[in-house]
Amino acid sequence: MPVEAPNKSAAPERLWRNARLACMTLEADGIGEVADGALLVRGDRIAFAGPERDVPPATTQQREVIDCGARWITPGFVDCHTHLVYAGNRAAEFEMRLRGASYEQIASSGGGILSTLRATRSASVDQLVEQSLPRLDALIAEGVTTLEIKSGYGLDLDTERRLLTAARMLSRIRPVHIHTSFLGAHAVPPELRGQPDTYVDRLIKEMLPALAEEGLVDSVDGFCESIAFSPTQIERIFDAATARGIRVRLHADQLSNLGGAGLAARYRALSADHLEHTDEAGAAALAAAGTVAVLLPGAFYFLREKTSPPVDLLRRYEVPIAVATDSNPGTSPLTSLLLAMNMAATQFRLTVDECLRGATRNGARALGLEQDVGVLEPGKFADFSIWNIESPAELVYRIGFNPLHSRIWRGR
Amino acid sequence: MPVEAPNKSAAPERLWRNARLACMTLEADGIGEVADGALLVRGDRIAFAGPERDVPPATTQQREVIDCGARWITPGFVDCHTHLVYAGNRAAEFEMRLRGASYEQIASSGGGILSTLRATRSASVDQLVEQSLPRLDALIAEGVTTLEIKSGYGLDLDTERRLLTAARMLSRIRPVHIHTSFLGAHAVPPELRGQPDTYVDRLIKEMLPALAEEGLVDSVDGFCESIAFSPTQIERIFDAATARGIRVRLHADQLSNLGGAGLAARYRALSADHLEHTDEAGAAALAAAGTVAVLLPGAFYFLREKTSPPVDLLRRYEVPIAVATDSNPGTSPLTSLLLAMNMAATQFRLTVDECLRGATRNGARALGLEQDVGVLEPGKFADFSIWNIESPAELVYRIGFNPLHSRIWRGR
Ligand SMILES: [Zn+2]
Ligand SMILES: [Zn+2]
Repeated sequence: MPVEAPNKSAAPERLWRNARLACMTLEADGIGEVADGALLVRGDRIAFAGPERDVPPATTQQREVIDCGARWITPGFVDCHTHLVYAGNRAAEFEMRLRGASYEQIASSGGGILSTLRATRSASVDQLVEQSLPRLDALIAEGVTTLEIKSGYGLDLDTERRLLTAARMLSRIRPVHIHTSFLGAHAVPPELRGQPDTYVDRLIKEMLPALAEEGLVDSVDGFCESIAFSPTQIERIFDAATARGIRVRLHADQLSNLGGAGLAARYRALSADHLEHTDEAGAAALAAAGTVAVLLPGAFYFLREKTSPPVDLLRRYEVPIAVATDSNPGTSPLTSLLLAMNMAATQFRLTVDECLRGATRNGARALGLEQDVGVLEPGKFADFSIWNIESPAELVYRIGFNPLHSRIWRGR
Repeated sequence: MPVEAPNKSAAPERLWRNARLACMTLEADGIGEVADGALLVRGDRIAFAGPERDVPPATTQQREVIDCGARWITPGFVDCHTHLVYAGNRAAEFEMRLRGASYEQIASSGGGILSTLRATRSASVDQLVEQSLPRLDALIAEGVTTLEIKSGYGLDLDTERRLLTAARMLSRIRPVHIHTSFLGAHAVPPELRGQPDTYVDRLIKEMLPALAEEGLVDSVDGFCESIAFSPTQIERIFDAATARGIRVRLHADQLSNLGGAGLAARYRALSADHLEHTDEAGAAALAAAGTVAVLLPGAFYFLREKTSPPVDLLRRYEVPIAVATDSNPGTSPLTSLLLAMNMAATQFRLTVDECLRGATRNGARALGLEQDVGVLEPGKFADFSIWNIESPAELVYRIGFNPLHSRIWRGR
């Protein structure tokens, strides 16, 4: 038996036994099922995940044992695309639209993204945290242990800073890891309407450097669409991010095909997201770059889109597929990753295994965190959930039901 | 001041003050909003609902006062169409279908309604209660105070009796009112395959009389569709129910137009449900009969239907519209009435007010309970919910989020 480092032996051990595991490891078929499984945790990391008969002997006197009653254990869920932090909501606009108001009428009455911008610009960090916390708690209650939060409702340095600061603060007051994305390129701010290049200049020269130096930017995101930023403008932003060693991701090909997937792939983006209008060349480029395709069925549902992302192409080229909530006030006011999985299956015909991978291993990869989270195997953080289900398919099949038994983050 | 009956004065009073009310009364515009509202309860009934300045003086010494912190109060929700009680689930079938299995392959591997039938026939009343309770608790957690539960997964006397007995038992172990519908005419049982008339005979001569005499049948339901029962067969069942003074309801025009809405109206049904293929004559007939149109967007979503119910026609003829979950294992494994409302708005373009009426006043009417529940006004049962929202539109707008603050059933 190999001699272990003293700090490891000293760490308290906890053993979850009598469990069924969905390990979600890359090498495994399907979900990596272990029928008579156990999970051994030392400190905040997994020390063993496999058949109970193979559990290594205790290295300390302090092994606590938890009987899971044959329940299923999955990796903690990863929601790899959210706009969770903002002020206000858009319920009034939703109501107006159902009454037949046009987008123009809504815009002229102060609705749309500008209403969220206005509310967010006038909110303090504490107010942003307070308003976002119930949304975060809804995700956590369904077993999310890692999520991404984007800025993009400030579009000026101060407000973008408050958004990212609020995201960081959320990760300190709840047991969850949060990856921040700077999405200054979400829209052109109203004070620079019609001057997108001027705004991109400001973003590159002032906003990104300041926020990056303050440690607030884990990745840089953009919205490449005719109603937002052109591929050329996105390239300038990605060049600036890449020059700083910051990974990028992209809202790509949601409403039309501007070649967003290919653009993301050229920059070896962590992810390309939405992808409803991505073509075969785009899928091939994502595969070659190792970029994750993040599908966002909540926005597809809410906007009543008709064109699904090209799931068959993504499969054929073996692009890793993730599923996320896209939680945001305008196009996906969704705070349930379980429901996002059901929507991906129902609307996009993803299989159960694809949905589960999409909310675990591939979600982690979309955040560059695949070394740490998303699967149950030794060395990974001990982030996992225990479920009151008979089969993992129930997590995808049920609609509006939360069978979480308990949730462990970093071994606790 | 009128002298009150002694039993009334003796009842303890509870006053919920500093609230915003959505009274949902028929006479009111929209949702019957009261901005500075209060709700006075004596015993298990509402004694007053209106502006706080108009609250009547205490009739006893025991008036307890609850400050609602300016939160919104709505009537308790009514989920007027569920198949909540059954055994097993159909997650494996869902998974097979996503992997490309045909309906024939699923049927030949024992799937479909027959798999639920098999599991349910072998379950005891206690097992049915135990398996259904988490689903009921999910509805209750979102403010449902009244719901309907259908039988229909037994298709023989003993199992239908156990289903309805389990439904009655659920109402005794949880603070909720349950209306039972005998849906023997859900499908032809496998042992009588190809002999629907023989089954209808048995249903009329044995099952309905026995179950009705045992007090298990609040209404009689049927599934009128080419894959289920013909209009003529449904008429025989409805004749038998009507002869016993039992109100009827109907699964009508979901997959094709067999004139189900008109049939339901001829029998002055409490409700006609689904209605995707109902035509103008059907809508007019429902209006004339006072039959509630129950829309079930969960099944529409799960089955990926393309033809929406004729909402404009229902509006034009002023048919009362309800919204329900249709919670069932095969076509709507949905246990969230909030989500059903969002789906009705998103998919069918119901307005926020229509969704709220559909889950309160009109849901109550679909159960023949409009004298007792569904609105906030004196004389009604004190069933209501207090919400952490800024506007009632949020209840419809958000997806997969539960802002319930607290729920009161019969004054407690
Ligand atoms: Zn987004
Ligand atoms: Zn039904």
